[in-house]
Amino acid sequence: MSDTTKFVLSEKQIPDAWTNVVPYLPTPPPPPLHPGTHQPLGPQDLAPIFPMALIEQEVSTQPEIDIPGEVLDIYRLWRPTPLFRARRLEQALGTPAHIYYKYEGVSPAGSRKPNTAVPQAYYNKKAGMRRISTETGAGQWGSALALACRLFGLDCTVYMVKVSYQQKPYRRSLMRAWGAEVYASPSEHTQAGHKMLAADPDSAGSLGMAISEAVEDAATHADTNYSLGSVLNHVLLHQSVIGIEAQKQMALTGERPEVVIGCFGGGSNFGGIALPYAIETLKGGPKTRLLAVEPLACPSLTKGVYAYDFGDTAQMTPLLRMYTLGHDFMPPGIHAGGLRYHGAAPLLSHMLAEGLIEARAVPQVPVFEAAVLFARCEGILPAPEAAHAIRAAIDEALAAREEGRARTILFCLSGHGHFDLGSYDTFFDGKLLDYEHPAEAIARAMQTLPRV
Amino acid sequence: MSDTTKFVLSEKQIPDAWTNVVPYLPTPPPPPLHPGTHQPLGPQDLAPIFPMALIEQEVSTQPEIDIPGEVLDIYRLWRPTPLFRARRLEQALGTPAHIYYKYEGVSPAGSRKPNTAVPQAYYNKKAGMRRISTETGAGQWGSALALACRLFGLDCTVYMVKVSYQQKPYRRSLMRAWGAEVYASPSEHTQAGHKMLAADPDSAGSLGMAISEAVEDAATHADTNYSLGSVLNHVLLHQSVIGIEAQKQMALTGERPEVVIGCFGGGSNFGGIALPYAIETLKGGPKTRLLAVEPLACPSLTKGVYAYDFGDTAQMTPLLRMYTLGHDFMPPGIHAGGLRYHGAAPLLSHMLAEGLIEARAVPQVPVFEAAVLFARCEGILPAPEAAHAIRAAIDEALAAREEGRARTILFCLSGHGHFDLGSYDTFFDGKLLDYEHPAEAIARAMQTLPRV
Repeated sequence: MSDTTKFVLSEKQIPDAWTNVVPYLPTPPPPPLHPGTHQPLGPQDLAPIFPMALIEQEVSTQPEIDIPGEVLDIYRLWRPTPLFRARRLEQALGTPAHIYYKYEGVSPAGSRKPNTAVPQAYYNKKAGMRRISTETGAGQWGSALALACRLFGLDCTVYMVKVSYQQKPYRRSLMRAWGAEVYASPSEHTQAGHKMLAADPDSAGSLGMAISEAVEDAATHADTNYSLGSVLNHVLLHQSVIGIEAQKQMALTGERPEVVIGCFGGGSNFGGIALPYAIETLKGGPKTRLLAVEPLACPSLTKGVYAYDFGDTAQMTPLLRMYTLGHDFMPPGIHAGGLRYHGAAPLLSHMLAEGLIEARAVPQVPVFEAAVLFARCEGILPAPEAAHAIRAAIDEALAAREEGRARTILFCLSGHGHFDLGSYDTFFDGKLLDYEHPAEAIARAMQTLPRV
Repeated sequence: MSDTTKFVLSEKQIPDAWTNVVPYLPTPPPPPLHPGTHQPLGPQDLAPIFPMALIEQEVSTQPEIDIPGEVLDIYRLWRPTPLFRARRLEQALGTPAHIYYKYEGVSPAGSRKPNTAVPQAYYNKKAGMRRISTETGAGQWGSALALACRLFGLDCTVYMVKVSYQQKPYRRSLMRAWGAEVYASPSEHTQAGHKMLAADPDSAGSLGMAISEAVEDAATHADTNYSLGSVLNHVLLHQSVIGIEAQKQMALTGERPEVVIGCFGGGSNFGGIALPYAIETLKGGPKTRLLAVEPLACPSLTKGVYAYDFGDTAQMTPLLRMYTLGHDFMPPGIHAGGLRYHGAAPLLSHMLAEGLIEARAVPQVPVFEAAVLFARCEGILPAPEAAHAIRAAIDEALAAREEGRARTILFCLSGHGHFDLGSYDTFFDGKLLDYEHPAEAIARAMQTLPRV
């Protein structure tokens, strides 16, 4: 028996279509609302900032959407990604469970974000755009979009949350290497940023603020569109390549997962690995537990309310019905920057409300403990975001040991941790804090929910 | 025609044996000499710091050496690595040349170093060792060995050149994540370090000094061996997996390379991609140009002398006949830390002296220009070391354009640059210096060559 077991697909097995869970849902997800009229949003409302091809995908009820050849050409740089069985981790845990993971850190950006950055850049290029604006927190999304824009000859402007801009200069350098223009947000480049700076010149910024700036930039320049790295339906759609490939690879193992696990920030990583399994179940196939794992410090799914809220701080976005902590909620500075979002993908929020998926919140010290155990067993150093999924996978495997019953676990290892070594140092130095979900801050932010 | 072209092998096509150029050479390479007696070294001279299996490989004249199953099990974590055709780069250069690259940055350490770290850890474990000591400059080798030791349950002690320890804390964190003990060298943990600190308490350290410390640590502890990441024959042997795979992948392209290019520090990267091609030629096959690319700031192959010299500063190692700048040579602080070594692999030095390989030195600003062009065309951000090979590949492609003649170029992209973003910033800020080879420093250091 081989110790390391890797399940690889041939290049021809890269999916040629994305799969869409929407047509299989028992009830349709509530529509986004216009922030002014509170009426369901029409395609024309989104046209100032998105190309029509992506708007069509956003509202599509087609079960499959073909992946353009130009996108596949770039996917081939790192896809198909490998699926591994974590045998050494299983041994270390003494569990009868079988643990599999799909590894998305092999892309040039080190994470699964290019899966959607590439088609978004492609459709914008095709629509005649010259430039894309976006926001980024820790920098994973900004760097993925910078890469994708460069490959299609588009300019890219990234509003990077100021505290990350200052504390994580290396992600900024990566965007720079791929030719993007990066501003610390709030900035003087937008009206929204100007206002925020006027109110608080020392503002450290937030993802909600940076979204406001990027949306304004796109809305006020005809040759520029906006791009979002998570939350929206078309982003979840693009990430379905992860789960489709994983299903083919799990077939090679001769097992099927009892539980599929993904970390959860905006939701596109979890959606990517989980939704193809949800479709399988909804089509009458076997039931698979689908487990979203979020940080206890920013517990939208487990402590938020399911309500209409804004996607950004400046209240410029459409209203989305989602699990939210309130658009004013400011999560503590946890080390999984990609999971610090007050809301959650509307599609996945709907599925959670319908009982089609599960959610769990975990504190960050046990997350880093899981990350280090994983790195020492399996070799790959995970991004702190991805380590949330590892924590839950380990807990599932330990439960299997308690029960004395085998089970098959699959999780998405969404990115490597080579950009996150400062956070590992904080952990090794014993300085990592375990934030409880900040109940009072949530209660305060909840009062800002719009009345719909 | 697909824009991105990736040539992948199945897991079964990972080589099951390393190939050894030594039996095919017209004349044998000069032996290493005992530093005291100046007599050829016997296996027993190396036994205090290396396991017998590696000593046998060091002096082997077998054409092939089987790769143990336990090593293959770990190779499978990232091998076979992909080979790409750089079509976008070709288009950007307007060249009729076809440029292929073998990408070794997909390993958990982000470079090709684990190809030898894993078998070295394996043979030491099998020989009953509890611990391995080593040195590291920028940290690539130290992190690869930390990973390999962890996977075989060995302790690992790394002496890291002090200036890197202070300036590149993230590589240190990576070693820490994999459980290694890391000391800034010179340290008080060894006699050699103590002496150096006594002479200069503010010493920034050097690779030569760190080697002295690591060798002493191993020589003075019965349960500890020493491990070197380049230069020696057994290291070059292990890296042959790169070239063997590349040959299989080039066969899939239907082309054969006219020139094979690798960056050159100690020589194991260049040897890895080039020596399987040298064997092909020496066995009577077609001739392939084999081009080693070194930094102009540390030009052992192009400006050094071919002479017996020490591998380290403290003159503890055997004498190796090699192209050397003198063991006292202190290269300027260039950003390709992995290429700052005063010497060169004896085996490759011999082949250069015999006219079997070529060498070229390049300045670092054009190297970073090549790196950024490559990143913007091909997506992958290269390590500065690997960018030396890119520079030469681009220059070969531009020469092809001048001549109006197609040619096929293959180079090894030995690692990603996710740990090197500070260096990219220095480049973007216009602060990168182009060191000439420092002729006077070389002349001074040359005077320290031992008389043999």
